[in-house]
Amino acid sequence: MLENTIAAIGPLDESAMTAARQLQARLTKPAGSLGALEELSVRLAGLAGSCPPPVPDRAAVAIFAGDHGVHAQRVSPWPQEVTGQMVANFLAGGAVVNAFARQAGASVTVIDVGVAAPLPVADVAGPDGAGTLHGAPEPAVPRLVSTPIRAGTRDMTVTAAMTRQEARTAVEVGIANAGKLVDAGAGILLTGDMGIANTTPAAALIAAFTGVDAAEATGRGTGVDDPTYQHKIEVVRAALRRHTPDPADPLGVLAAVGGLEHAALTGFVLGAAARRVPVLLDGVIAVSAALAAAAFAPDSVAAMVAGHRSAEPGATVALRRLGLTPLIDLGLRLGEGTGALLALPVVTGAVRVLHEVATFDSAGVAEK
Amino acid sequence: MLENTIAAIGPLDESAMTAARQLQARLTKPAGSLGALEELSVRLAGLAGSCPPPVPDRAAVAIFAGDHGVHAQRVSPWPQEVTGQMVANFLAGGAVVNAFARQAGASVTVIDVGVAAPLPVADVAGPDGAGTLHGAPEPAVPRLVSTPIRAGTRDMTVTAAMTRQEARTAVEVGIANAGKLVDAGAGILLTGDMGIANTTPAAALIAAFTGVDAAEATGRGTGVDDPTYQHKIEVVRAALRRHTPDPADPLGVLAAVGGLEHAALTGFVLGAAARRVPVLLDGVIAVSAALAAAAFAPDSVAAMVAGHRSAEPGATVALRRLGLTPLIDLGLRLGEGTGALLALPVVTGAVRVLHEVATFDSAGVAEK
Repeated sequence: MLENTIAAIGPLDESAMTAARQLQARLTKPAGSLGALEELSVRLAGLAGSCPPPVPDRAAVAIFAGDHGVHAQRVSPWPQEVTGQMVANFLAGGAVVNAFARQAGASVTVIDVGVAAPLPVADVAGPDGAGTLHGAPEPAVPRLVSTPIRAGTRDMTVTAAMTRQEARTAVEVGIANAGKLVDAGAGILLTGDMGIANTTPAAALIAAFTGVDAAEATGRGTGVDDPTYQHKIEVVRAALRRHTPDPADPLGVLAAVGGLEHAALTGFVLGAAARRVPVLLDGVIAVSAALAAAAFAPDSVAAMVAGHRSAEPGATVALRRLGLTPLIDLGLRLGEGTGALLALPVVTGAVRVLHEVATFDSAGVAEK
Repeated sequence: MLENTIAAIGPLDESAMTAARQLQARLTKPAGSLGALEELSVRLAGLAGSCPPPVPDRAAVAIFAGDHGVHAQRVSPWPQEVTGQMVANFLAGGAVVNAFARQAGASVTVIDVGVAAPLPVADVAGPDGAGTLHGAPEPAVPRLVSTPIRAGTRDMTVTAAMTRQEARTAVEVGIANAGKLVDAGAGILLTGDMGIANTTPAAALIAAFTGVDAAEATGRGTGVDDPTYQHKIEVVRAALRRHTPDPADPLGVLAAVGGLEHAALTGFVLGAAARRVPVLLDGVIAVSAALAAAAFAPDSVAAMVAGHRSAEPGATVALRRLGLTPLIDLGLRLGEGTGALLALPVVTGAVRVLHEVATFDSAGVAEK
């Protein structure tokens, strides 16, 4: 499944992009006055291969949840059981991601790829590992897909976080869930994540794929104090030294220093790109996974839209490498998909302009 | 009306802000992880005087439209009749502001305070000068309020753009329209503007209120070429030299170098602040008017939310002086209210968090 997905990812359609640029120039506004939204609309036309591209409605947030063996190294002040407790909170509709998703009319699907604690409820996983999904998810009712691969990763400072096969399975769960959501009608996919300690593997992935020092890729996550922050940098550095991951082997990097949700998000991004549906990236976990996706398939970057700039410094390192400019920059560092959801109306608005705005000719407005 | 409005504007309610800070700390997310949205939610609680503050729904965009005598100085490449043509486009629902307003569920009201060309349709102005308004405006149906004060301002390089009485009338039209929209149920007001050449008076206002040089306050507006840009700076400089407006006399500044829509927007901001309803500022026209509002009533700044950072350099000068950080920064320079509309979901989301997100206690989530 991974190889077929990579093979299906291709470049943007130049003729649709040219058509979108020409249309933008005829709309009743000064040329270029919509700033970054104009180029975004052009790119989405290129992704869809049509101008105008479809309005990205029926947005779907997928929150991949997992735990982390490296939590044992005391890189987070939060107990590990919070991962499962927050999954329960998502399913009850009580988290920030739920409030933002209700406002945006987006569905929320939680995919358990490796939460250590037992979870309260679960759909049955289908034979393809993507869980059951009958029709489109309802915006109001979050759902859980149970596809745990193992009860959290191993401690990457001691051994590889996952086997290559476990990492591949996680990637393929992400691909399968992207496909299911697109089949159910989603016009845009949004990345979400939950996993206490997951900014540590994200930092390791960013350092591994970009070559920056651990100190540059590592941040304070949910808000660690100075000694814990210094310790966290050393943990990332130790893991990289132990494994010396090869950025040309993304599956090897994910297995060595990644997380189950990071690997699944990598597949989710690849799956979106293969289906030529835009994927709106959330924060540092998402962009670390996006680096892996870009290593698997460089053209997958064309499907990525950076939702926001996380306060985590590694996010900026990764965005720079990906060549993506975020739509929102408000100092968020929550994850869950919240930053992607805040950016969703900007993406939708950029596309609706191409569908709804009158031209100088049609509106009888004089040009300069 | 102006003096009563100014007298009604007061400071934020500290006890509501304290309650909002305490509530933010109990919600199921790491403290501070929503970045700028947390402080925004606290400020809106202080503005409303309650925690949580009301969700800012039934958003209303008011587009104040006027023409400018300084257009004769060739500061814009667009013919003056485009102001009226774009008003017709707004009423037909064909402009970018309409597309964004439909998406956001916001109503659009166009208020003619001085369009030079005859306009196609109009409501009858009420005795208070605010036009008729029966019930809440419909998001889908833009409406026109006709309260023209004069057919465009005079050329500020030759004489004062308005008399003091004309400027006062424009300010009071803005106040009246803010009140009407709030009476009709609007939970948040958004500023919009239309007026070919209106970035020239905006630059003059910003220079007058902040003391920066004309070159720092002036931008390329809809996109003038280098010679026109240099000429535009000289026009702004000449107007300031002729009138030497006193920033302590905001009505005098507006009359000398402002525009009818700038003056009306000043009143609109003051009216929102007096009603303790947030006002989401659009671009450079809005923030130049906001400087005048702050000069009339410094506490009015508490009601202002900066929607976006316009590409016009004067906008950044004004935002800095107002102490406001914009929510969106995507290089837009269209006006109409488009930047404010893009930011609306961020404001709504910030408040919905206080209403909808579970606490650690209620959700059974462990703390660090």
